Amino acid sequence: MGAAIITVGDELLGGDRLDTNFTLLARRLGERGIQVALHTTVADDEVSIARALKSTQTVAEVVIVTGGLGPTADDVTRQGIARALGRGLEFNEAVGAHLSDRFSNLEAGHLELILKQAYAIEGAEIIMPNRGTAPGLILVDGDQTIYVLPGVPAELEEMLETTVLAHIANRTGPLTPLARRVLRTAGVPEAAVQMRIADLEDTYNAVRLGLLAHPGLVDVVVTAPESAARDFQKVVDEITARLIDALYGEGDATLAEAVGRLLAQRGKSVAVAESCTGGLLGELITDVAGSSSYFVGGVIAYANDAKARVLGVDADTLKEEGAVSEETARQMARGVRLCLKADIGVAITGVTGPEGGTQRAPVGTVHIRVLDESGETGVLIEQPGSRRQIRERAAHAALNQLRLRLLDT
Amino acid sequence: MGAAIITVGDELLGGDRLDTNFTLLARRLGERGIQVALHTTVADDEVSIARALKSTQTVAEVVIVTGGLGPTADDVTRQGIARALGRGLEFNEAVGAHLSDRFSNLEAGHLELILKQAYAIEGAEIIMPNRGTAPGLILVDGDQTIYVLPGVPAELEEMLETTVLAHIANRTGPLTPLARRVLRTAGVPEAAVQMRIADLEDTYNAVRLGLLAHPGLVDVVVTAPESAARDFQKVVDEITARLIDALYGEGDATLAEAVGRLLAQRGKSVAVAESCTGGLLGELITDVAGSSSYFVGGVIAYANDAKARVLGVDADTLKEEGAVSEETARQMARGVRLCLKADIGVAITGVTGPEGGTQRAPVGTVHIRVLDESGETGVLIEQPGSRRQIRERAAHAALNQLRLRLLDT
Repeated sequence: MGAAIITVGDELLGGDRLDTNFTLLARRLGERGIQVALHTTVADDEVSIARALKSTQTVAEVVIVTGGLGPTADDVTRQGIARALGRGLEFNEAVGAHLSDRFSNLEAGHLELILKQAYAIEGAEIIMPNRGTAPGLILVDGDQTIYVLPGVPAELEEMLETTVLAHIANRTGPLTPLARRVLRTAGVPEAAVQMRIADLEDTYNAVRLGLLAHPGLVDVVVTAPESAARDFQKVVDEITARLIDALYGEGDATLAEAVGRLLAQRGKSVAVAESCTGGLLGELITDVAGSSSYFVGGVIAYANDAKARVLGVDADTLKEEGAVSEETARQMARGVRLCLKADIGVAITGVTGPEGGTQRAPVGTVHIRVLDESGETGVLIEQPGSRRQIRERAAHAALNQLRLRLLDT
Repeated sequence: MGAAIITVGDELLGGDRLDTNFTLLARRLGERGIQVALHTTVADDEVSIARALKSTQTVAEVVIVTGGLGPTADDVTRQGIARALGRGLEFNEAVGAHLSDRFSNLEAGHLELILKQAYAIEGAEIIMPNRGTAPGLILVDGDQTIYVLPGVPAELEEMLETTVLAHIANRTGPLTPLARRVLRTAGVPEAAVQMRIADLEDTYNAVRLGLLAHPGLVDVVVTAPESAARDFQKVVDEITARLIDALYGEGDATLAEAVGRLLAQRGKSVAVAESCTGGLLGELITDVAGSSSYFVGGVIAYANDAKARVLGVDADTLKEEGAVSEETARQMARGVRLCLKADIGVAITGVTGPEGGTQRAPVGTVHIRVLDESGETGVLIEQPGSRRQIRERAAHAALNQLRLRLLDT
């Protein structure tokens, strides 16, 4: 059983805005074992919307259409769907009363505009709007069930969670979800991850492996039909064993969350000294709710003068070894640990380019040191890339070095 | 004249990976006045690919298909397109020779795999691969021109820039591009931006306005056919006049770039003191290449102790006014300016939640102060949202306050 998703909106076709609604829908359906077979994005145009719906007829039993349900003139999704199904629009009294009630204090012209959204497609089951003003519509047409939902992400998500997913499950009977695990790794390049696990797909035919690479991180996505549950588990176990040092979490868990949990468990505090990442490492750490229990703060020592003045990096070291050197990173980590009275100091110094590379430290060179009372660890990265890639890779590598240090102590 | 884009790949339908190829293609075509009318994503499946191509027949004169040209078994885009067009595949000697030559040192099995990619669709014009191993194909079928391109972003981009865009222009004759300007604003809420400019669409019928909101920022996208060039210019001028204080740049220019340019022009240096944003402000500033000429560094003073110890925030202030207060922000800005010897100090302190809100400073409260030798400015934000939204809004507001301060001096 397959699903099709149609996202509607001129703005999505310009390439300016990412289609996060599609991402949300695909993930939620996937978690329930419903595979998306087709995704189409069309303009705010009645004929295009109708054509897109028709093109799903032989492909999908479940169709979710999102966007274009608002009150303005360019919102024509209702009309497009009605046209494809050969149905009319009719004013829905319940929705009308609900909206009139909620917006009784609006001036007449504005209320009239909002009430445009009370026109539903004939035969539709209504999902009342709580957050927004556009109701969702559920339509049954032959073998297909069509869900027409608002494009505002919060409204879409609410209707999906409270109504649509349950409705799909009701119609299809108990789903046999695809077993799916996302194993997240840090510190091993994509090609190396691939080499370590590639043979498993040949040995266990029903299991599929996919790799998603981010700078410094690789996710391994393992999927299998439920009928192959034993093979699925064997593959997961095998990957876990082969990548044990690199594995920091599963699913949506971030590396910063994994590190935060370790810090909290061990009752350790951390401070960061950042040069080329300019605050990115601190930003990742504090993106985790509750990070104030272990993160003291940091120093962004972008200029050499700041490295010397605030972190106490030796002037001779900066001159002889250079600002991008292992010894400078070591002194930065020591300095920030002392200056902010943290148990652990983490430092990053590197060259992100496009300018500033030298023979000793070309663009892409990054030194990372992690230092606590009992010792230190670290890594040297030498890998080209864009400014953003180098920065992200550096911040992720620093988090991973901190993780390894915590596991080691 | 419209375009359709078909992106091929199971991984794109799972919602795990963003389709950046589509974004790239849509932008590049849009810049040349070619509107994308339809975007479809399909699985690595011959029948689905064929069906997707057929569904573009009445919609688009230009079709770009990307992905699924690699050497592995799940790469079946060639087959799918050939099936839709009723053509065969044939070994292309030129591509074969090119690949054999480049990969002469590979073992036979591996080379054989790569040579799979030398099979082209009958009648195709070939785009030789430089970066990768898959050639691009150009096919003419009736009124349609179909470009079949690799899915690896760097390979796609190269073929697009060196061959495809020029080829499209050749076939269509001189294009009449859609006039398009993106005016970027900061510090004015989306609803307020809308109210200030909404009447312009009624007055100038041919001009379309779209708003793209990011936390603390709103982009106004103005488009019009070239025939309405005068109205287009009038609308751009009018929006510029009405939003002059908020307008920081155009197109892809970021707020951090605009601020960086002002700092460089005025020969001023800046340092940041961040609490709730945890390094995000520094990260945005240093995301700009060349920022080392004006950014000295910063202090991430996450714990209260760090605010007192490194930035010299008064213990009584922290106790009486609280860590999230205007006076604390002021002292943070003053402290970081002195400690890092910068011309300007910028400070952010706030509550990003989900925990930690108080009656005096509920979640979403953020104080921002910008301070230099001649005075100070700042803003208090009180707006709920997710942790991420509050952080981004705070960092953008701090950049904007810095911008306003620089414009003022």
